[in-house]
Amino acid sequence: MSLLAVGTLAYDDVYTPYGEVKMIEAGSCTYIAMAATYFVQPVQVVSVIGGDYNDDFLADLQRRGSDLEGVEVIPEGKSFYWAGRYHDDMMGRDTLDTQLNVLADFDPKVPESYRKAPYVMLGNLTPAVQSRVLDQLTERPKLVALDTMNFWMDHALEDLMAVLKRIDVLIINDEEARQLSGELSLLKAAAKIVEMGPKILIIKKGEHGALLFEGENLFSAPALLLPKVVDPTGAGDTFAGGLIGYLAATDDLSFANLKRAVIYGSAMASFVVEDFGTRRMQTLDQEQIDRRVQRFGELMTVSL
Amino acid sequence: MSLLAVGTLAYDDVYTPYGEVKMIEAGSCTYIAMAATYFVQPVQVVSVIGGDYNDDFLADLQRRGSDLEGVEVIPEGKSFYWAGRYHDDMMGRDTLDTQLNVLADFDPKVPESYRKAPYVMLGNLTPAVQSRVLDQLTERPKLVALDTMNFWMDHALEDLMAVLKRIDVLIINDEEARQLSGELSLLKAAAKIVEMGPKILIIKKGEHGALLFEGENLFSAPALLLPKVVDPTGAGDTFAGGLIGYLAATDDLSFANLKRAVIYGSAMASFVVEDFGTRRMQTLDQEQIDRRVQRFGELMTVSL
Repeated sequence: MSLLAVGTLAYDDVYTPYGEVKMIEAGSCTYIAMAATYFVQPVQVVSVIGGDYNDDFLADLQRRGSDLEGVEVIPEGKSFYWAGRYHDDMMGRDTLDTQLNVLADFDPKVPESYRKAPYVMLGNLTPAVQSRVLDQLTERPKLVALDTMNFWMDHALEDLMAVLKRIDVLIINDEEARQLSGELSLLKAAAKIVEMGPKILIIKKGEHGALLFEGENLFSAPALLLPKVVDPTGAGDTFAGGLIGYLAATDDLSFANLKRAVIYGSAMASFVVEDFGTRRMQTLDQEQIDRRVQRFGELMTVSL
Repeated sequence: MSLLAVGTLAYDDVYTPYGEVKMIEAGSCTYIAMAATYFVQPVQVVSVIGGDYNDDFLADLQRRGSDLEGVEVIPEGKSFYWAGRYHDDMMGRDTLDTQLNVLADFDPKVPESYRKAPYVMLGNLTPAVQSRVLDQLTERPKLVALDTMNFWMDHALEDLMAVLKRIDVLIINDEEARQLSGELSLLKAAAKIVEMGPKILIIKKGEHGALLFEGENLFSAPALLLPKVVDPTGAGDTFAGGLIGYLAATDDLSFANLKRAVIYGSAMASFVVEDFGTRRMQTLDQEQIDRRVQRFGELMTVSL
């Protein structure tokens, strides 16, 4: 089962209490593709970069199973750039700089060979751009998942509400779920959000795990306890990539399998934060992933 | 198996976005005893009240299985009083007033009939008072659990460290665990705290559940999602009461049973917040408790 993923291929500067990195390859689609290709290949990437993007990094993405035909290169342009500094408690961060560059005029072009993708991950982007990807598909995918953020709720709510009607899975954090629904209780928030379109809702709670809602079904996944979080950047995208990659690989949308997918996504996210950028993702292997998934199982097993 | 519990029998004024109550019977030992007597009787209460305390409420506590021989009455004194207002998001609260009254000179007297209690719950109090309860026991209990708060870490750290050496289970929240250990990672915090004395650590995370640590064993319990939290006061004490009550009733300190106890404590806490003070605790029955425990099971079941 192929997976189509849209999002950014970016450069980040990241400052944390554990150090700093400059001009590191990052962006939502990088993290999504890096995680998803551990489960399913190809991951068909739709994105845009400037002439400045690192060819070796792109070649590595391809070697890992990403199809980059849908990555538009604007030779005279510069790639999307973000800089941020995490607080000492790693709970919050300040954005130091954002340069949209080639992302400012991003008009996604979905190659012919991607248009029947059964699984689609719409990474965090302008909702209108997310919609334009769906417009170009020639068959309704089995599953469309979408990530978004509070910025779009503030500045493009109408477009966001329009794209929500066209998706199956919404992946947001608890703060975003509360803002989108206007409800404090996540139970009430979920009930309101599923009425907006997505029949499956996943609420990420960072170090507190994730919640999965589908109809009357509810699942609470823990987060792994880590001795050290080096760089939280990309954790949400990696979670989404692992989750949808696992679903695409297993091609099973039962609630039991959705729960497993949440754990696989959580496991991938627990790796990515162990080092800066995508470094930890580059040294992973299947055995490490399986062992970590088993640790999630041990963490939550109780006989009542 | 009897359970000895020390803590406050208090009056509270509580203001929340859902309403307010004045001079409602509350206090750590009230919540502990109300929860624990659903599992084990008698709960032998050690506390102090003024002549103003409601006789009908005390009679109800007795009817439910609390032994009040250890409750000292100071006829001319006034009972401990606390007033607080919860923020609109129910995540924080401001203390409006605290009047120690008879608690200021509380010197706990453990009746002869309590002194061989196999299970002991030291509710949140001055650490020196918690120690004085242990001093009066004539046999080492099977299990001593202790609740404390950041106030004692700031103002009575030496006494707190002394009592920690004498207990088996410490029950605190995530913020307190970070303060006590000086570690941001709860995994590292737990490792440091168990070196202070308690071999079992339970970290409460409110709406995010609870963590249980014992040696290499680790368990993450979810919180139930509630449509509405009316009054969070006493949730931590009710959790502790349910947990130790369940342990005393089952008299099984295996890790498997400690995990079950955390779920029973969580279930009791999920009830108490549904109404002001102890109101919801007064209408509970065993079937409701069992059904709710099963809901926890459903929330966390995954086949990996």
